[in-house]
Amino acid sequence: MEQVSLPPLSRVAVCGGTHGNEMSGVYVVREMQRQKVEKVGSASVTTVISNPRAVEVCRRYTDTDLNRCFTDDILSSLVTDASPYEVGRAQELNIQLGPKGSAEAVDLLCDLHNTTSNMGLCIISYSFSDWVCLHIYKHIQKKITSMPVRLILLDIPLSEAYSQESLGKHGIAIEVGPQPHGVVRADIYNAMKEAVDQTLDWVKDFNSGSVFEGGKLEVFTFMSVVDYPRHPETNQIMAAIHPQLQDRDFCLLQKGDPIFLSFSGETVHYEGEEPLYPFFVNERAYYEKNIAFRLARKKMITIPCLQVNKD
Amino acid sequence: MEQVSLPPLSRVAVCGGTHGNEMSGVYVVREMQRQKVEKVGSASVTTVISNPRAVEVCRRYTDTDLNRCFTDDILSSLVTDASPYEVGRAQELNIQLGPKGSAEAVDLLCDLHNTTSNMGLCIISYSFSDWVCLHIYKHIQKKITSMPVRLILLDIPLSEAYSQESLGKHGIAIEVGPQPHGVVRADIYNAMKEAVDQTLDWVKDFNSGSVFEGGKLEVFTFMSVVDYPRHPETNQIMAAIHPQLQDRDFCLLQKGDPIFLSFSGETVHYEGEEPLYPFFVNERAYYEKNIAFRLARKKMITIPCLQVNKD
Repeated sequence: MEQVSLPPLSRVAVCGGTHGNEMSGVYVVREMQRQKVEKVGSASVTTVISNPRAVEVCRRYTDTDLNRCFTDDILSSLVTDASPYEVGRAQELNIQLGPKGSAEAVDLLCDLHNTTSNMGLCIISYSFSDWVCLHIYKHIQKKITSMPVRLILLDIPLSEAYSQESLGKHGIAIEVGPQPHGVVRADIYNAMKEAVDQTLDWVKDFNSGSVFEGGKLEVFTFMSVVDYPRHPETNQIMAAIHPQLQDRDFCLLQKGDPIFLSFSGETVHYEGEEPLYPFFVNERAYYEKNIAFRLARKKMITIPCLQVNKD
Repeated sequence: MEQVSLPPLSRVAVCGGTHGNEMSGVYVVREMQRQKVEKVGSASVTTVISNPRAVEVCRRYTDTDLNRCFTDDILSSLVTDASPYEVGRAQELNIQLGPKGSAEAVDLLCDLHNTTSNMGLCIISYSFSDWVCLHIYKHIQKKITSMPVRLILLDIPLSEAYSQESLGKHGIAIEVGPQPHGVVRADIYNAMKEAVDQTLDWVKDFNSGSVFEGGKLEVFTFMSVVDYPRHPETNQIMAAIHPQLQDRDFCLLQKGDPIFLSFSGETVHYEGEEPLYPFFVNERAYYEKNIAFRLARKKMITIPCLQVNKD
């Protein structure tokens, strides 16, 4: 089997409150700050509340979604008094944790998120060949048994990667649900805290020279989105997610399966030819983004054996 | 058994969006408006989106909680440009549906609410002797089998009753959960819609002269509130609802039972001497009101046989 060696991860950042009403990440970061977690083995750990203004008012964002502001275009745009708060904040974070794509960027950025969807614990990452992220996923999946753990890969070039974890040399989002926005549930908090602890344990072991076995991983790759049926004039939704789809994230959706139940009682069926896996089903923040759920294809990938390159 | 006759209910109002992010009520009202539900038997039906500005931005309220604005004091206060939007809106609603406590008020007001708590379907009302409300509860409880149906009674004088249903001669809030705010779930929408339909069916039968048997009812009466453990300086919460209490609304809480799990892992126990029933456990809107959950006592009450008085 292929064997890869990579440089040590000397700087790690853990960020919460990128969406100000996703409470598990806010409280995990605050608890790490209270416990003064600043080192793990030889690596430094930085903890950040990404959008303090949004956390203060317990909303996703104040002017615009911060977690769509980390593209090269927005990070290099001119900020004026008229700019959305989050554009300026994204540029501050890029200075603190990046610059994105540069040698100065943190080695690993973990960004903490919650969803109202029944997704369990998901690791979301941008690359099919970021062996650090994929090995961290493999480790978390092995260690966490309280809920399903899955991997979602987005295939987007780094320059267009819009979310905060793209600032790091390696980046993962840890997405846990279901949890209503503005609420913290102990079960969801505990799963997220354990995922962060396991990530930091992995970093310590990696930097110490442990050899991580390669192998096969099941991954979900993003394919498309489905919007709610909407009124052509008012744009108001006319249906809810069907009870047979609600809470069934990552259960295969076949042609003819019910996907929506209209407010007057009619069922809408899935018409796609290819069976796919729905996720982010009924995520609260996606109503305004015209997304009722996303669809993924399942694949197997093979990752190599990994160890640190101390040279 | 005692027999009571009461005047017909000639004007009914169904209100949603009193809290602008409690979506089932918004969509039930909109669906009734789309279907042009304006009569049920001999009674008129008025449908109202109570807080349209809050619905527009999908928040509980814009300036202040509308559903705390229906006390006599606030309804009679002088409204100026500096007043919170919701105070003026409460006074508009009082003109449209009240005036509260007057002969002109609607006969029955149903106000539709959602909660993030696992409360099933609850009817909330202000009086132990409002036989109309209590018989409507009895009817709904018999008809709806998809989730538990319970009755919560608040013992507050009408002048201090703060919520919108107090504008009607008879008033109930229909509270259904769990549903994240800003989200509509088909199961929760359907239960609320059925509760409204059953209420209107009952009104039609009552006005037509049906005789409703009396009997015993189990009710929950509000006793006290419990707040989260908070940091004495920052006021930030230091614990979440314990997993053994989360989602266990209306399960008896005994001295020594776990109620909170701190973010560093310590359990906090219930210290009350009297076993009581928790409800509104981890309701999202109550973090800012310093309420982690409410506590109720369970009682049995007897309601008389009821029929319309056509004189």
